[in-house]
Amino acid sequence: MYFLLLHQKMEKNYQGIEKEINERRNKIKSYLNNLLNEISFYSEKLKEAGEWYFKNGGKLLRPLLYLFGCDEVGENYQNDRHLKNAAALEMIHVSTLVHDDIIDKSSLRRGKSTVHKKFGHDMGILCGDVLFSYAVSITRPQNTMKELCRLYNTICDGQALEMQLSEKILKEKVDPQKIYDEYLNMISLKTAEFFGVALSLSAKKSKKKKLLYYIGKEIGKAFQMADDIHDILYTHQKWREDFASDLKENKPTILYVLAKKEGIDILEIYKERKRNHRNHVKAARDVYRLLKEKKIIDNAIDNMESFLLKAEEKIDNLENQTIKMFLAYLNKKIKDSVKM
Amino acid sequence: MYFLLLHQKMEKNYQGIEKEINERRNKIKSYLNNLLNEISFYSEKLKEAGEWYFKNGGKLLRPLLYLFGCDEVGENYQNDRHLKNAAALEMIHVSTLVHDDIIDKSSLRRGKSTVHKKFGHDMGILCGDVLFSYAVSITRPQNTMKELCRLYNTICDGQALEMQLSEKILKEKVDPQKIYDEYLNMISLKTAEFFGVALSLSAKKSKKKKLLYYIGKEIGKAFQMADDIHDILYTHQKWREDFASDLKENKPTILYVLAKKEGIDILEIYKERKRNHRNHVKAARDVYRLLKEKKIIDNAIDNMESFLLKAEEKIDNLENQTIKMFLAYLNKKIKDSVKM
Repeated sequence: MYFLLLHQKMEKNYQGIEKEINERRNKIKSYLNNLLNEISFYSEKLKEAGEWYFKNGGKLLRPLLYLFGCDEVGENYQNDRHLKNAAALEMIHVSTLVHDDIIDKSSLRRGKSTVHKKFGHDMGILCGDVLFSYAVSITRPQNTMKELCRLYNTICDGQALEMQLSEKILKEKVDPQKIYDEYLNMISLKTAEFFGVALSLSAKKSKKKKLLYYIGKEIGKAFQMADDIHDILYTHQKWREDFASDLKENKPTILYVLAKKEGIDILEIYKERKRNHRNHVKAARDVYRLLKEKKIIDNAIDNMESFLLKAEEKIDNLENQTIKMFLAYLNKKIKDSVKM
Repeated sequence: MYFLLLHQKMEKNYQGIEKEINERRNKIKSYLNNLLNEISFYSEKLKEAGEWYFKNGGKLLRPLLYLFGCDEVGENYQNDRHLKNAAALEMIHVSTLVHDDIIDKSSLRRGKSTVHKKFGHDMGILCGDVLFSYAVSITRPQNTMKELCRLYNTICDGQALEMQLSEKILKEKVDPQKIYDEYLNMISLKTAEFFGVALSLSAKKSKKKKLLYYIGKEIGKAFQMADDIHDILYTHQKWREDFASDLKENKPTILYVLAKKEGIDILEIYKERKRNHRNHVKAARDVYRLLKEKKIIDNAIDNMESFLLKAEEKIDNLENQTIKMFLAYLNKKIKDSVKM
């Protein structure tokens, strides 16, 4: 009975935070739209390319992390500066997506053509460039600009590591524990760094900034792992044209890394099955079944949850109830995303 | 006799400014080296790629424009902030070169492999990204960061226009005067904008900033035209493996534009000759001879000099003798570069 009541209370609380998230998300959306309308280029095509991914939705997670971070440091998120910084974070995220899609040779994102598929390879490069430089140009104060530049550097470093790790696992026999460490380092530099910076960006140098950064970083690692797992959850993916894209693109994921520890190379198996089936979906489905049978998906979920737990321990140290609710809700959503 | 004396006096003056330029160039070089040593990446390959073009020399023109701009606004160029900003300008320039080389599919720069040829296409994209974001992160004050972000935006816009112009002249019949205007707009956004920003960056908002920007911009246009002309001056180019690369890469240049006004399409002629000769150098040499015969090179040089003249008229309004000498010397060098 007690648990039922607690559960009902939680659901009710989540309704409150869901409303708050939607409100803020809508504010970011309209702010982004205004910004995109204001940007002017001589090249109409460059302008169109820059707007492309913003038309296709997106969760706006990074701007949300920033705006809820404001609550903890006593800043009013509705302040123009904060909405601008939040919008800039999304632009920077999109900039990395555009360049990553070129690197990964991806044709689809959110069910539509990637920028370079639609506007051409060269326009894709320029599009990523202008989104980043425009984003930084509108942020303030100076320290925020610096942090965002450093973030971009770190993400690119992580992307370079990912490319090298992809190559390495193809060519060499590498110690599985070492691959796990390299994988963790790589996601720490990419998604996790972005989450850490977004959540702590509004804070001035202080213990609190470090705390927010730590929490964001751990959630970011979990988020990336959930993303890795989600990519291959066939039952979720029937409607997705980019099902199991990580296998197709030869990417080191938490599933690859943990399977490797069990002596299973899922990229090898995928390739072999693809040769047999001559069909990506069938081959990927075989890999999915194997991962399920060997309990590697469960193992990956446990791994992911351990990072959420690390974050949760520190979330208790935050003072503001709104950010606490937001982060609890976010963690729940991350867990739910990989429920089979 | 008077002219001879004047000439001797000029030469002597140039010796002074040459010494000054070399001194400053060496300062930038060692500053750049220190910065490059300090940058750390987990990916060693990314670090190597980032350093690559700096090992192959370079005129360091943009940093020099910045440092001599300091003289006019009473700033000591040896101040750490100024050397840092100057170095950042070169990094931004190199960032654009790395991405442009990918777009142009160039294999060689300054006689060596381009970044993407040496380190791979994907590393090339990341390398351009980190050079720009690192460069901005080290500059100050905030307004300088903003100006550099806007500059990058403008250069990318110009690059997008160049790509579109290249496509257009291949496909459509376009009015030659319109092509000339579009060419001028395109170089105004690329090289000319860079020169204008570099020369005026140390100045705070003022009439002087505008004046420096104007002068830089006109010199930048002339510089780009000289670069276009220089590309095909066969006698200068015997040693260059990338002789007449603009023809190879289908680029709209001042020579293309002016020839078009005379009813000659040098890109068409180049292609036809290349089919006949099956040899790039021979085909390009034919185009060179035609351009010479039809006085289009002379015409292009006149055009280029008209922009230098516009700059020179305004240089008289500057107060500081060092920058005046530097700009006079630079203009002379630009003129000399296309002497046949």
